Amino acid sequence: MSDRRDDWLEEDQDGVLRVRYRVGKTLSSTRSDYQTVEIVESPGFGRMLVNDGTVMLSERDERIYHEMIAHVPLFVSPRPERVLVIGGGDGGTVREVLRHPSVMHCRLVEIDGEVVEACRKHIPQTAAALDDPRVEVTIQDGVDFVARTPERYDVVIVDSSDPVGPAVPLFGADFYSNVHRVLNDDGIVVSQAESPFYEPEAQRGLLRILCDRFQRVGIYNYSNLTYPGGLWSFSFACKGDLCPTGDFDDARVERAERTFHYYSAAVHRAAFALPAFQRDALADLLRPPKTARVRV
Amino acid sequence: MSDRRDDWLEEDQDGVLRVRYRVGKTLSSTRSDYQTVEIVESPGFGRMLVNDGTVMLSERDERIYHEMIAHVPLFVSPRPERVLVIGGGDGGTVREVLRHPSVMHCRLVEIDGEVVEACRKHIPQTAAALDDPRVEVTIQDGVDFVARTPERYDVVIVDSSDPVGPAVPLFGADFYSNVHRVLNDDGIVVSQAESPFYEPEAQRGLLRILCDRFQRVGIYNYSNLTYPGGLWSFSFACKGDLCPTGDFDDARVERAERTFHYYSAAVHRAAFALPAFQRDALADLLRPPKTARVRV
Repeated sequence: MSDRRDDWLEEDQDGVLRVRYRVGKTLSSTRSDYQTVEIVESPGFGRMLVNDGTVMLSERDERIYHEMIAHVPLFVSPRPERVLVIGGGDGGTVREVLRHPSVMHCRLVEIDGEVVEACRKHIPQTAAALDDPRVEVTIQDGVDFVARTPERYDVVIVDSSDPVGPAVPLFGADFYSNVHRVLNDDGIVVSQAESPFYEPEAQRGLLRILCDRFQRVGIYNYSNLTYPGGLWSFSFACKGDLCPTGDFDDARVERAERTFHYYSAAVHRAAFALPAFQRDALADLLRPPKTARVRV
Repeated sequence: MSDRRDDWLEEDQDGVLRVRYRVGKTLSSTRSDYQTVEIVESPGFGRMLVNDGTVMLSERDERIYHEMIAHVPLFVSPRPERVLVIGGGDGGTVREVLRHPSVMHCRLVEIDGEVVEACRKHIPQTAAALDDPRVEVTIQDGVDFVARTPERYDVVIVDSSDPVGPAVPLFGADFYSNVHRVLNDDGIVVSQAESPFYEPEAQRGLLRILCDRFQRVGIYNYSNLTYPGGLWSFSFACKGDLCPTGDFDDARVERAERTFHYYSAAVHRAAFALPAFQRDALADLLRPPKTARVRV
């Protein structure tokens, strides 16, 4: 839902708020089977990936999102070797996954090959990671992939866009039953979980699905520049009972910490301290009993 | 720097980002000696106070700002009885201060009487607090007030707008020398400290001034809806050596916690976990030696 006037790209939020980015040259513009895919230059935010008129990432702030979606599960997982990224065709999440030396294999399953192609050409800051020999890029619907694959993973990262259009099934129960199946015993799935300010019902819906399938369920926040409201969330779910703050070794982070832009051991722990209104809205979904309630 | 077109109020950030709020009726519009002061209705955010075209607060999210500017110092101060609020003519900070039963006296010093009048008429959600018998409202330049007053305070809260126009001296060294003087021995000053994303130099400037005068200096973050970038900061400085996380009794908070919208003991602690880029940008200013370096 965007409108391009003069040299401003405008995004609408619920009809009450609009965010406009000054933009310059359009580097790429295609219509894929799923959406319009554009790469535009902006003087304030660097190059931006814009799908169906919604800003997916900007060079200026993409590290925040990608560090927070990747390092929280990867620093909780005892020794992540195999990682599955669903969505995230820009490559930014994969880039952060590869910073963990234990990772031997990272598969990216992106539904829209045009996103991968456009980012490979114009946003090497994220997409260069896709050339790493540990990475395999699969252009396929992530829902189908997890339904059929015999592979098993230590961490699954659902790096999806908003629950409209092609991303709707990525917020669904069947998908998470299959994610549960492809995870190893202590496997972790982290997912893009929308805004606590603007989408509290989407957060409840996602956490309810996770609670029905996973032993440990939580949600954590990060702040970025280009999503409305600034504060957004990722869900965390573990097939076993790994606690995202309790089963977390600060020392592992601190050995690498100085090279992160946003993430740190302190930020990791703080991200799980929810604003009171969000904590209260989700309270019944955040403390599942220690005994597994898997019904998949 | 705003432009009103049709029924949208538009705010510009550095010429690269514009945030537009859908607005309805203008309830009040005056030109004071300092600025234009407007109260407008918006379908997404409730009533908004708009000074010189910049949104100061909205009914929808003002509690976040006001809880975080008030409760962090007031729950660290061992027994706050006398509180000085500079700026904050809307009354929201005073409202939160008054929730601490130890507070006997709260003085609000606001330079612009039109702000107080407009909020008293149209935003009782915040301004009703100004009628409390423990409150004294003084219409005066806060810089002059702290330079001349013989009064002493346990907590000073600098609830200022951005460092342009009348608020510029509130980011200055002379002002903080006088704030130091009016504080009791373990007194704390907390100040609106801009955005880590957009104003890192303003944050460094303010912390440098504080470091030269106060024994303990820190900065903490909160997320709101109506300031660009979402993530904004408050500075924390103590004349003594009270640590905002170490000298903080969770139990005091937890007795009242369920009534807060955003603040909690966990949020209090988490707010001091800075994003790595902000921590690194301010590192030399965040760990002053334990021995006082007061040079006022």
